Amino acid sequence: MTLSKAHLKELRELSHKKHRGEQSKFVIEGIRLVQEAAASDFELLEVLHTAEVEDHPGGRALLQSLRGRDCEVREVAPRELETITDTVSAQGVAAVLRQRSFDAGDMLVTDDRGSVLVAFDAVSDPGNAGTMIRTCDWFGVNGVLLGRNSVELYNPKVVRATMGGVFHLPIAEDVDLPSFATRARAAGYTVFVTDAEGETHFDRVSFPAKSLIVFGNEAWGIRDQLKSLADYRVMIRRYGAAESLNVSVACGVVLSALHKLYDE
Amino acid sequence: MTLSKAHLKELRELSHKKHRGEQSKFVIEGIRLVQEAAASDFELLEVLHTAEVEDHPGGRALLQSLRGRDCEVREVAPRELETITDTVSAQGVAAVLRQRSFDAGDMLVTDDRGSVLVAFDAVSDPGNAGTMIRTCDWFGVNGVLLGRNSVELYNPKVVRATMGGVFHLPIAEDVDLPSFATRARAAGYTVFVTDAEGETHFDRVSFPAKSLIVFGNEAWGIRDQLKSLADYRVMIRRYGAAESLNVSVACGVVLSALHKLYDE
Repeated sequence: MTLSKAHLKELRELSHKKHRGEQSKFVIEGIRLVQEAAASDFELLEVLHTAEVEDHPGGRALLQSLRGRDCEVREVAPRELETITDTVSAQGVAAVLRQRSFDAGDMLVTDDRGSVLVAFDAVSDPGNAGTMIRTCDWFGVNGVLLGRNSVELYNPKVVRATMGGVFHLPIAEDVDLPSFATRARAAGYTVFVTDAEGETHFDRVSFPAKSLIVFGNEAWGIRDQLKSLADYRVMIRRYGAAESLNVSVACGVVLSALHKLYDE
Repeated sequence: MTLSKAHLKELRELSHKKHRGEQSKFVIEGIRLVQEAAASDFELLEVLHTAEVEDHPGGRALLQSLRGRDCEVREVAPRELETITDTVSAQGVAAVLRQRSFDAGDMLVTDDRGSVLVAFDAVSDPGNAGTMIRTCDWFGVNGVLLGRNSVELYNPKVVRATMGGVFHLPIAEDVDLPSFATRARAAGYTVFVTDAEGETHFDRVSFPAKSLIVFGNEAWGIRDQLKSLADYRVMIRRYGAAESLNVSVACGVVLSALHKLYDE
């Protein structure tokens, strides 16, 4: 079975941010990620796979599990799959999903339950943003907020680097972070920003049950407007010659302090 | 001035690992990195730049600083530079350097000075390896050892991700890690491996003044042979749904505990 020209064009267009937004869809690749998507609350619209994927035990199991679902499963030629996927390692399977949009305000917890939220202020590298979402997912963060000037969540490189994280926790896009941080403080959150010039070393941080933790841009860090809203400016002391830490590494170091909150 | 065909061919060949090894050279790109190289102990063999780099204040300063050095500085056409560099953001400047080789055994400190060494057992992604070297550089690690099956240090993606780290600390390649770990223990080092099934939570670790810390492969972690040589198997507790942490993030979390050693 081959895809119609019009359909193939539509699928190819999903490699562009503009069209992803217009169609409100995105593409994922690989057996593992399609499995995770199928088990998530995301709407799986269409699965495309080559004949070869049935030779892979995981691939066969995946296709079986999709039978009976309200989702088109099509066998396509390897060349067709290549034109709509981003990597060479798509393992013979890709899926089209409906984008979900989470409202940042809905993530604010107003009663006395705990809530740890993480915001990215203008994180621009897709690999970094994806890895940071994966890290949030590991450390049990309750929700992620992408600031207005951060990379797009449904960029295939971001989705891939989350390693399934995009399916595990709510992520709001296009958030006005200064305004959100103000609302969070009013709702009882303590606001932390990571800042090379901060005064609180990361190992001194004890995150309260309601915490908003903000990470900034790879090159220029966090905007002054956001810094001025912070209760604590967190830094990681340097002992060597590097000029900076990678932002996703800094994110891991700071979030690792969450264990003190959870284990107490 | 244009490059001779033979010269251009030789430069282009440096994008292949085999030729980098044979020529014992490597290529770096960008104003900042060439500056760092010029200030380091590496031998700068040749600098290639476009006319435009002189319009950039940093670029002009760099070229001025290279005058009088025993190093060829050549202006080339943008197209020529493109064919020998890896990224589009080379900022109009690249340099050819002589590779350095550090002996792992020389890094072992046998008197009572402190020495923190970090080893990568089969880290295969260039971005991860480079980011881990950058992280080691931040946390004041004294030397890095790349195991036999790790990615090549002089891969352009590794060099770029180190953000200058390759010029700041000694890095030995092609190290037989089980044999090195055995020698390190005999020299009084305590050996730590990071292992998802480890029994020591990272926040319980107090690195002694002589520590060897080993990180493993992205997919399968650390080989059993190395695990069995470890004094401590360090883990990072998970509180969410992610299956794993990115290895460079895990490296940052574990090395962040070094502050207890340095600040005591």
